[in-house]
Amino acid sequence: MANKLLLLNGPNLNLLGTREPAVYGSTTLADIEQAAQAQAAAAGASLACFQSNHEGALIDRIHAAKTEGVDAIVINPGGLAHTSVSLRDAFSSVDIPFVEVHISNIHKREEFRHHSFLSEKAQGVICGLGADGYRFAIDFALKQR
Amino acid sequence: MANKLLLLNGPNLNLLGTREPAVYGSTTLADIEQAAQAQAAAAGASLACFQSNHEGALIDRIHAAKTEGVDAIVINPGGLAHTSVSLRDAFSSVDIPFVEVHISNIHKREEFRHHSFLSEKAQGVICGLGADGYRFAIDFALKQR
Amino acid sequence: MANKLLLLNGPNLNLLGTREPAVYGSTTLADIEQAAQAQAAAAGASLACFQSNHEGALIDRIHAAKTEGVDAIVINPGGLAHTSVSLRDAFSSVDIPFVEVHISNIHKREEFRHHSFLSEKAQGVICGLGADGYRFAIDFALKQR
Amino acid sequence: MANKLLLLNGPNLNLLGTREPAVYGSTTLADIEQAAQAQAAAAGASLACFQSNHEGALIDRIHAAKTEGVDAIVINPGGLAHTSVSLRDAFSSVDIPFVEVHISNIHKREEFRHHSFLSEKAQGVICGLGADGYRFAIDFALKQR
Amino acid sequence: MANKLLLLNGPNLNLLGTREPAVYGSTTLADIEQAAQAQAAAAGASLACFQSNHEGALIDRIHAAKTEGVDAIVINPGGLAHTSVSLRDAFSSVDIPFVEVHISNIHKREEFRHHSFLSEKAQGVICGLGADGYRFAIDFALKQR
Amino acid sequence: MANKLLLLNGPNLNLLGTREPAVYGSTTLADIEQAAQAQAAAAGASLACFQSNHEGALIDRIHAAKTEGVDAIVINPGGLAHTSVSLRDAFSSVDIPFVEVHISNIHKREEFRHHSFLSEKAQGVICGLGADGYRFAIDFALKQR
Amino acid sequence: MANKLLLLNGPNLNLLGTREPAVYGSTTLADIEQAAQAQAAAAGASLACFQSNHEGALIDRIHAAKTEGVDAIVINPGGLAHTSVSLRDAFSSVDIPFVEVHISNIHKREEFRHHSFLSEKAQGVICGLGADGYRFAIDFALKQR
Amino acid sequence: MANKLLLLNGPNLNLLGTREPAVYGSTTLADIEQAAQAQAAAAGASLACFQSNHEGALIDRIHAAKTEGVDAIVINPGGLAHTSVSLRDAFSSVDIPFVEVHISNIHKREEFRHHSFLSEKAQGVICGLGADGYRFAIDFALKQR
Amino acid sequence: MANKLLLLNGPNLNLLGTREPAVYGSTTLADIEQAAQAQAAAAGASLACFQSNHEGALIDRIHAAKTEGVDAIVINPGGLAHTSVSLRDAFSSVDIPFVEVHISNIHKREEFRHHSFLSEKAQGVICGLGADGYRFAIDFALKQR
Amino acid sequence: MANKLLLLNGPNLNLLGTREPAVYGSTTLADIEQAAQAQAAAAGASLACFQSNHEGALIDRIHAAKTEGVDAIVINPGGLAHTSVSLRDAFSSVDIPFVEVHISNIHKREEFRHHSFLSEKAQGVICGLGADGYRFAIDFALKQR
Amino acid sequence: MANKLLLLNGPNLNLLGTREPAVYGSTTLADIEQAAQAQAAAAGASLACFQSNHEGALIDRIHAAKTEGVDAIVINPGGLAHTSVSLRDAFSSVDIPFVEVHISNIHKREEFRHHSFLSEKAQGVICGLGADGYRFAIDFALKQR
Amino acid sequence: MANKLLLLNGPNLNLLGTREPAVYGSTTLADIEQAAQAQAAAAGASLACFQSNHEGALIDRIHAAKTEGVDAIVINPGGLAHTSVSLRDAFSSVDIPFVEVHISNIHKREEFRHHSFLSEKAQGVICGLGADGYRFAIDFALKQR
Repeated sequence: MANKLLLLNGPNLNLLGTREPAVYGSTTLADIEQAAQAQAAAAGASLACFQSNHEGALIDRIHAAKTEGVDAIVINPGGLAHTSVSLRDAFSSVDIPFVEVHISNIHKREEFRHHSFLSEKAQGVICGLGADGYRFAIDFALKQR
Repeated sequence: MANKLLLLNGPNLNLLGTREPAVYGSTTLADIEQAAQAQAAAAGASLACFQSNHEGALIDRIHAAKTEGVDAIVINPGGLAHTSVSLRDAFSSVDIPFVEVHISNIHKREEFRHHSFLSEKAQGVICGLGADGYRFAIDFALKQR
Repeated sequence: MANKLLLLNGPNLNLLGTREPAVYGSTTLADIEQAAQAQAAAAGASLACFQSNHEGALIDRIHAAKTEGVDAIVINPGGLAHTSVSLRDAFSSVDIPFVEVHISNIHKREEFRHHSFLSEKAQGVICGLGADGYRFAIDFALKQR
Repeated sequence: MANKLLLLNGPNLNLLGTREPAVYGSTTLADIEQAAQAQAAAAGASLACFQSNHEGALIDRIHAAKTEGVDAIVINPGGLAHTSVSLRDAFSSVDIPFVEVHISNIHKREEFRHHSFLSEKAQGVICGLGADGYRFAIDFALKQR
Repeated sequence: MANKLLLLNGPNLNLLGTREPAVYGSTTLADIEQAAQAQAAAAGASLACFQSNHEGALIDRIHAAKTEGVDAIVINPGGLAHTSVSLRDAFSSVDIPFVEVHISNIHKREEFRHHSFLSEKAQGVICGLGADGYRFAIDFALKQR
Repeated sequence: MANKLLLLNGPNLNLLGTREPAVYGSTTLADIEQAAQAQAAAAGASLACFQSNHEGALIDRIHAAKTEGVDAIVINPGGLAHTSVSLRDAFSSVDIPFVEVHISNIHKREEFRHHSFLSEKAQGVICGLGADGYRFAIDFALKQR
Repeated sequence: MANKLLLLNGPNLNLLGTREPAVYGSTTLADIEQAAQAQAAAAGASLACFQSNHEGALIDRIHAAKTEGVDAIVINPGGLAHTSVSLRDAFSSVDIPFVEVHISNIHKREEFRHHSFLSEKAQGVICGLGADGYRFAIDFALKQR
Repeated sequence: MANKLLLLNGPNLNLLGTREPAVYGSTTLADIEQAAQAQAAAAGASLACFQSNHEGALIDRIHAAKTEGVDAIVINPGGLAHTSVSLRDAFSSVDIPFVEVHISNIHKREEFRHHSFLSEKAQGVICGLGADGYRFAIDFALKQR
Repeated sequence: MANKLLLLNGPNLNLLGTREPAVYGSTTLADIEQAAQAQAAAAGASLACFQSNHEGALIDRIHAAKTEGVDAIVINPGGLAHTSVSLRDAFSSVDIPFVEVHISNIHKREEFRHHSFLSEKAQGVICGLGADGYRFAIDFALKQR
Repeated sequence: MANKLLLLNGPNLNLLGTREPAVYGSTTLADIEQAAQAQAAAAGASLACFQSNHEGALIDRIHAAKTEGVDAIVINPGGLAHTSVSLRDAFSSVDIPFVEVHISNIHKREEFRHHSFLSEKAQGVICGLGADGYRFAIDFALKQR
Repeated sequence: MANKLLLLNGPNLNLLGTREPAVYGSTTLADIEQAAQAQAAAAGASLACFQSNHEGALIDRIHAAKTEGVDAIVINPGGLAHTSVSLRDAFSSVDIPFVEVHISNIHKREEFRHHSFLSEKAQGVICGLGADGYRFAIDFALKQR
Repeated sequence: MANKLLLLNGPNLNLLGTREPAVYGSTTLADIEQAAQAQAAAAGASLACFQSNHEGALIDRIHAAKTEGVDAIVINPGGLAHTSVSLRDAFSSVDIPFVEVHISNIHKREEFRHHSFLSEKAQGVICGLGADGYRFAIDFALKQR
């Protein structure tokens, strides 16, 4: 069982609940982070949260997770999924298992959203299940290590 | 809340547990179907199971689901995901919400497995989370209607 | 003049009239088959009808048409048009002239519907003219042989 | 029911009957235009005919059709089908329903003939049925408006 | 040495000898199956034969081969070679060595016949050598296990 | 400063204001041409206007501009942008600087509208700014020479 | 009329006037920002300026614009145009109309500069008109809201 | 031996000698046409000349050549080479042998100039040899019929 | 029956048995050539052998085969299969039937090995059956002429 | 005027006159070389001839031409046109103008023959004019230097 | 000779020695930076070092190098090589010669690593030579200016 | 430490110093080979040199290196890098580590020079560093074994 989880959210996810509600729903990021922490706590684990619009800040945070002994990461990389080799390399560098989550079904959207540089390195991928996607990913992540 | 669910499994999934265990794990299809029915029952819903190696039989079953008043479908289409327009059309024809599940992470495998004809029509897609993927999909499907 | 015609309909066309009426209209398959038989009879010819969601069953039926001495076939292959080399080969195998019909205009739909494996082997193709497409195809087929 | 139809023929179709008879048959354009007018008259409608080897002249004619109150157009665009965005835009500009006809089965010919800029905007498309294609298209067009 | 072989033939191969003789020759499937059984018997092995136009039936048969203890399979998948991921997965599922045979030289034919989903999983591939291809494949298969 | 400008409009732009108003707005071509002439006059320059649905007529007009000593051209090539190498060559032949204008944002429309044969030869390109695009282009053109 | 505008400049545009003058001209970013503010002031509006080489900082600034009630944005995204889905998503998130400007004609440059992730979401795009492009974009932006 | 030749020149070739002399040289079209007529006359044949910037006019001229009994055509299609299926079809329609000439070496120029719709139907193609290309083509054409 | 066969081996096949034994097995080229000659002799035919790392030498040898009256050729072209149009042309030039053999299954290897310039001109192709591939090819070749 | 020419012929052209006469005609290479030498002599120039099936030998010969002071080269590279970067580099290395000749019209043949690595470096290209192509090329080459 | 060098390392290279040692070896970034400084000092030059996971910070640093009068840069861009147009533009903006280094052989890795936006602008590229690559690049850089 | 090195140079590199000096510099191949031998001698190793314009001769030489016990190879394959699978296979066959060197930066040149068949098999690749590239490669090679 994992003791220490990290929940990462990438660019623009700070606006969840206000951004394109038809696509992303009305749940805010704060709602999601609170629910995630409660879910982890219920399983006797801790869960840290971090959101940034800066690719570099997310990479720095992933590196720090290695030092902190994080067991598993859940990440919604936002648009960086489709463009960031460096984020992918960050995961390879620290070798921490992670689950990739997308709130919307990326296969219903623009062609360029159908490929994610992270998916090939992830344990698994969940998309289109809204905020539930985070819950399922954390459920799975709690079993890692 | 959904009252009636259908769990579909496509070609070769009858061999789960014996087929390429390094890729698909050792849980059998019977294990998965029993767990799914228990999960549905716990939520006060019924869940029917069907597996076939025949594309046509799966389409027939989806059509029947319409008549039966099924609220949501969970499907692991196996290899048909990547080749069957007819299966996709079957879902459009009956207009029942569904979740697509893959046991393995299809993004780590051959290029041709990275595209699924079903994903664009699904509510959402889960892959790489093993048998847990079914559990998450049913959890989500139970909220449909 | 043709004496014996065969009208084939592929996957999901059994749901015509109920399936996506915005795309396919409200005429049922039974309506189409009755009209087709009346049209053939008026020309002094017989016309058999067959619909299946199974690729293999359609191939079997095409093979049987050879034995029965069918002069021409009208087929709406549904989604198999875009994926089935075997259906194409079935036509090459029996060498019976055929017309391909699509109720909707496939050029207005998804990219993958713009190519049909059958079209290169067909006498001609009609799409987007609704149920009238069947009538025109049968009109043309009645002149074959 | 449509009262006023327009039959357009694009580049090289003035040579019908003499041009590559193995591909296009021996019926002349005059034959086709006479039959079309008879068919329209029988339905109580009028039908004007126009052929040109000039893309611009065809566009001018389509614009004029708007002013004249034409209800539907049948067009065999010849080679312009594969290259003319302007012809496509002409139809969008006047917003008159039209049917696209090709005498030969364009799917049996060169790869570049498999795509037509008009098809996505047409009501429907008929190819490979020879001069009958015009007859079917006019039959369908007569029901428009 | 193999004791038990299975010879599979896919869609349309039941028409061998009557279908496009210029491409496939005049030997019938019965001729090929008899010769194959004689060849196996001469080597002290048994050989079962199965042909179907149904993808699902071929998959079912491959699954059964596992239970029966078949040592090696020779398959002419017909058109399914180019379209069936499920058939490929069936072979991966049962992990029985197999040889892929095509009667005609698929490299002389349409572009889409140049790729087979099976070839990457096969021991080897023979094409263009007519009925002799089966004989060579069985010769090779008899040495497996 | 330029003394002599030419404003060219390609196929279907004569219908501006009536054609697809949701895409192109309600300003007519006459409105645009009058405003353009006023704008040029205010800067002490003359501006000639020409619209045609004929590629050849536009090329002839560009050639004439050379003889007339036109200093700069503003062109909305309409659909010819995407298909006419000859129009591009006409500009290279006369070597007169030009600005390409599109009323709608061509990047929001069909894929084939994303490439223009003219853009590589133009001084610059403006799209999506409606009738203002012409004003900006003329403003810029007036500074050429 | 817009009251509040934001002018954004992306990576390397701080070097305008010193960077590749043959491509970008000798006007500095300070020149452009001053002119822009004067232009806005003349129209009775305010205009804020921001330049950064950090994708994340630009996204943060766009988010802030929402809170500040900015009516329209003019952005020269520099190289991020071609690589940043996150910047595109930032615009979708705040739903503020914007105009995309490029100083050079990107269609005369490397192939990878011909596509911008922003263009499909922009009101319009101007390229190749040098510093005038900013002036035209602000002119247009002042009419928004 | 051919008695009657036709020399066709497409869009912008009327400007030969003034247009991009670095690419096309300083010989004028009149020079070329005079030399061609002298060359034909020396061989006892007649040669008619025609240049147009209108695709349709070139097609009309090719059709007329059939009626006139022209034995062979030499054509420099200019930019239409790369875009006109209708011009290609005009040659197929009249079935007169022709040689395609380009003054510049199209393989040294933009990618889109590397393909000509005419080449597949021509007897042969000459490019890059300047005005000599016409001379060689006429030399060859004089031997046709 | 063929009287005279030629067995050709291309670049690097002289190292068979020592080169990448995991891929190519431990049989040497000498072993294969001896077995081939024995096989031919048993059928009353002669078989010459030639191996070279030089494309030109192989072409020269194929030309010589024409003069010698060779009835059929068996060739393992090695890496030249994927790159040599000239070798393909050599076979077309002499018009001698040939069988292409690859020891390994080229479909399991790099993408660029999936296409061979020879296959379209060969009678047939065998790959992945190790040294047996040569035996089968010679068996087939002995029946030619 | 050129004093010294070199005529190169690549792989398989030694078989001219015997190789695929339907494609290449019945003139032999000796015929062509004699005619070429006579043509050069008539113009007061010398012309050396060289044919090889070895890419390396052709490169060596081109290098030698530099030392010998050859003014221009005429080359029919055969199949090497489509595959040899080294041959292209040889021409760049010696910087001698050359004309590329193909006897057949390569645009009527396989797709892979439509691109030549040499054409971009050649003065010009002639194809499809049979043996006359050599004559025209030498005529042109004689004017070089 | 260069007096002032800058050594840049991009995302994840701070983890060198701990990150995927099988791919990147066990030398740490500190080791590399110390060796680089010693190497520069031995040549009488100074060398500054900078590593960041932030694209923007690397661009800022390159801009600063211009002000500082840096003569040449050695950069290992990490994953940004494959995705950052802005980094490429930063080098064009400051016009300082640079060498691109990759520790691993990027041609043995994923397809998307085979292209670097920097390489076209670099003096040269070294990959796959481990930490030696830095040494060679600095050796070369020391000769610049 | 390596005792025995081999330095290979491919087609056209014999002309180094005279060939396209703007691209390749003025150092001759003799200069490079002498420097390489001195460098190896200084390290107590021997180094043999070989240049050929013949692919086959280079393959033969690589095979011989195996027999001679060569420890590492440095190769500048010239244009063969982009076209020769056989050269790649030669390295795989002998399993001797090698470094690939290009004098010019192949990423600044034609698209087809961006891919090398050798790179995936090489220890590493150096390009664009002129004659220094050889020195670095030999430095690295001397450490092999």
